[in-house]
Amino acid sequence: MTGRELEEHPSYQRMLEMMHKVADLEGALALLGWDQRVNMPPKAAAERARQRATLSRLIHEMVTSDEFYALVKELAGQVDLDSLDDAASQIRVMLRELDKARRLPPEFVARRAQVVGLAETHWEQAKAAKDFSLFRDDLKRVVEIKIEEAELLGYQERRYDALLDEYEPETRAATVEKVFADLRAVLVPMIQAIAAQPPVDDSFLYLAYDRRKQWDFGLEMLKAIGFDLERGRQDYSMHPFTVGISENDVRITTFAADDLKPALFATLHEGGHGIHDQGIPARFRRTVLDGSPGLGISESQSRLFENVIGRSKAFWSYHYPRLVETFPEQLGNVDLERFYRAINKVTPSLIRVEADEITYHLHIMIRFELEQALIDEKISVDDLPEAWDAKMEEYLGIRPPDPSQGVLQDTHWALGAIGYFPTYSLGSLLASHWYQLAVEEHPEIEDELAQGRCDTLRDWLTRRVYAYGRKLTPPKLVEAVTGGPLSAEPFIQYVRTKYGEIYGL
Amino acid sequence: MTGRELEEHPSYQRMLEMMHKVADLEGALALLGWDQRVNMPPKAAAERARQRATLSRLIHEMVTSDEFYALVKELAGQVDLDSLDDAASQIRVMLRELDKARRLPPEFVARRAQVVGLAETHWEQAKAAKDFSLFRDDLKRVVEIKIEEAELLGYQERRYDALLDEYEPETRAATVEKVFADLRAVLVPMIQAIAAQPPVDDSFLYLAYDRRKQWDFGLEMLKAIGFDLERGRQDYSMHPFTVGISENDVRITTFAADDLKPALFATLHEGGHGIHDQGIPARFRRTVLDGSPGLGISESQSRLFENVIGRSKAFWSYHYPRLVETFPEQLGNVDLERFYRAINKVTPSLIRVEADEITYHLHIMIRFELEQALIDEKISVDDLPEAWDAKMEEYLGIRPPDPSQGVLQDTHWALGAIGYFPTYSLGSLLASHWYQLAVEEHPEIEDELAQGRCDTLRDWLTRRVYAYGRKLTPPKLVEAVTGGPLSAEPFIQYVRTKYGEIYGL
Repeated sequence: MTGRELEEHPSYQRMLEMMHKVADLEGALALLGWDQRVNMPPKAAAERARQRATLSRLIHEMVTSDEFYALVKELAGQVDLDSLDDAASQIRVMLRELDKARRLPPEFVARRAQVVGLAETHWEQAKAAKDFSLFRDDLKRVVEIKIEEAELLGYQERRYDALLDEYEPETRAATVEKVFADLRAVLVPMIQAIAAQPPVDDSFLYLAYDRRKQWDFGLEMLKAIGFDLERGRQDYSMHPFTVGISENDVRITTFAADDLKPALFATLHEGGHGIHDQGIPARFRRTVLDGSPGLGISESQSRLFENVIGRSKAFWSYHYPRLVETFPEQLGNVDLERFYRAINKVTPSLIRVEADEITYHLHIMIRFELEQALIDEKISVDDLPEAWDAKMEEYLGIRPPDPSQGVLQDTHWALGAIGYFPTYSLGSLLASHWYQLAVEEHPEIEDELAQGRCDTLRDWLTRRVYAYGRKLTPPKLVEAVTGGPLSAEPFIQYVRTKYGEIYGL
Repeated sequence: MTGRELEEHPSYQRMLEMMHKVADLEGALALLGWDQRVNMPPKAAAERARQRATLSRLIHEMVTSDEFYALVKELAGQVDLDSLDDAASQIRVMLRELDKARRLPPEFVARRAQVVGLAETHWEQAKAAKDFSLFRDDLKRVVEIKIEEAELLGYQERRYDALLDEYEPETRAATVEKVFADLRAVLVPMIQAIAAQPPVDDSFLYLAYDRRKQWDFGLEMLKAIGFDLERGRQDYSMHPFTVGISENDVRITTFAADDLKPALFATLHEGGHGIHDQGIPARFRRTVLDGSPGLGISESQSRLFENVIGRSKAFWSYHYPRLVETFPEQLGNVDLERFYRAINKVTPSLIRVEADEITYHLHIMIRFELEQALIDEKISVDDLPEAWDAKMEEYLGIRPPDPSQGVLQDTHWALGAIGYFPTYSLGSLLASHWYQLAVEEHPEIEDELAQGRCDTLRDWLTRRVYAYGRKLTPPKLVEAVTGGPLSAEPFIQYVRTKYGEIYGL
């Protein structure tokens, strides 16, 4: 059948109807999750976990029902599954999801939701108390259930591949290792060369900055990069995140701190995710093509706005005078050049989300190695804090003073998100690749940034990346946009130019 | 079967399991509704209406499934349905719900959710713009669908009874009319006698009071009456409301205004609802016995805390010095007696939620008469604004200057809540009845209030009212607690004593 014929077929209509129903439940589930992290009263954790488990199970039952599977299989038999038509793509992507989802029994899905619901709450308590033991048993349950998940999903080379595939479809741990090796070969000597220089003074970023004013300035930046606050909102949470509740309801969070850096760049980071979510074509909404094909692709958007743009001289040549106006006491005698060097200071540090663009990748490599070891049962959760600290020492030469700045710093494992971290690094690599291509085609982009606008770049991203929704898997999308496979080369060029200039390397 | 045997019966277990599932979905639906009114970005209304419609339909499908009905009918055949055992009550109350719910087809329920989802948003816009025409067509659709609903549900005397029964089971419009007549016979001459006196000066309540300080003071009052902020929260919304998301997640809202009155008493009102919701026995949670048997009963709790306690001299003898400390500029030269007379000032006014305890009932009578007329198709929505204004003139001698202070002031009709208003008055009557009984049994209650505590009263309410959950219908609960039927007499005694003293009548 042609795309047109297919779209009028009753089975296709029925498939879309079921997708709509599932999408609405997923919206409700997303809101339960958002609310848990932003608003929920402290004693409501157990009931919320049950509510999320019930909704997860219901969604899973619908999606994995024999009726739905038969419908999608029937449709799949009648189209060219390689076609990029909307209708054929709906079927291809849905079929891939179903083939995977049907490997997880409903009972497993509910159990997993309950485990991570409680783990998340206990992680928050453990982090606040700086006490890993409050989270240890939950993390053991998380690791156990993720191993069970990997075995249920199946894999060819490594157990970890099954989990990575959940976040970055068709991407393999061996590929990631290869790219990480290329990266490490360049970054490690670069970090050493920088460490040999006198340290950049960025102390003025860590003065007390009024939180209300930071919040307001953050909203101005969000408007400048094009996040639509009539179709979304920003709140505070312990760990920043972005979630789409519906087409016109994309929510980002940032966190409250006195020093300037985290809130500014967390806002730009989540703002990048938010723009991506808001930019998906309307015709894909409430279907399987809504959203991003993988977390590396998502992360390429957040990192683009946080780093490539948000730490560029062009961007700040417009925004910095406004920042000085907002905080004259703290920044009145700091010029743009000093500010630019400070926000691009390269130095080994403890907290991933505060790390610079270069050492950041080493934080990711640590997590990537440790979570692979957990999943392969090569280390136990009991030994994890020590293993973490040892790797920090080995890669970055520093040891966390307590677990809230070490193994407890990130929420991901509490959420059951194992296989997630490497996508951050893949995102960084892609961000510089997209930007390189966009500027080649539209050299005016940098001038626009210097005028406080972002239209041409956003338009390019909308046409070249967001327009696909989830039609293509990440490796295929990279191929379609860049004409080649994933590569560390554009990022390496980017850091060589930028940090070469800053540090005179 | 005995209660014990029943509780171990697999069919009973299966029924509970389905109730839990439904309760979890209802929690998610409640959160979607809460969020829509507290947080949702302005452009997300259409998708949110669809999400709520999908969840409503799903819940309705589960509850009205033939499988579930057969299960409950089977169990109903094996117990004494008049027993007050937990298990027998679960079955009795569930069967009553099912017999009603099965009269509404799933398609109807989804359509109704969508109509009210949009109506609510347009009502907010219309109220802000003071333009009834922005809401008119939505209200027509609401009235049409409520007429359809009444016809589907069925009734013996009046079409309106079918809708009233949704909010106050087994209560009839004719009963309400009778109680309202008793009430009017006393209140109208009382209002006239008061109007003949020089007006009480309450101007100091309408000065500018810092909103942040009002908020903090409101939280202190909530703690004093016993609302647990670890098992609930307070937010701002356009119209205050209370919603239970789960056993340990009860949310109330208040509204932001510069003058003191609305926020203080809205907070106490919703706080009363919140305490009730938090006080339901744990063993009823996630079942059909969770919650209140009717809105009049719910309202008896909110009105008890808002009026009987919240406008009493005992309560303020403790809290007033603290209020003066918080707002020395506005209240420094106002003594307790003047404050007490001001917060109990009786005078005809436009806004129901700001009305005093006496004229309040006339606001309700207007709504009760108009909504009956709409449902009986005796007036059309087109004529409603004029009919509203005419009744205001007739009953209270004043006309709203614009519809935001008239027919658009309340959110209820936008939510499809027709048959709801009379329960507010029933709640007032019951509130004074409960309080009269509680103080007869525990005269120390007034002393405790004067010491900023509320334990004995809350304990009495927990044992005598909350302990039943939804086991008894409202008329039966009133009988069980007071030993007689609903009566206006205790309220009449209460206002005669209180306002007799204030106004020297």
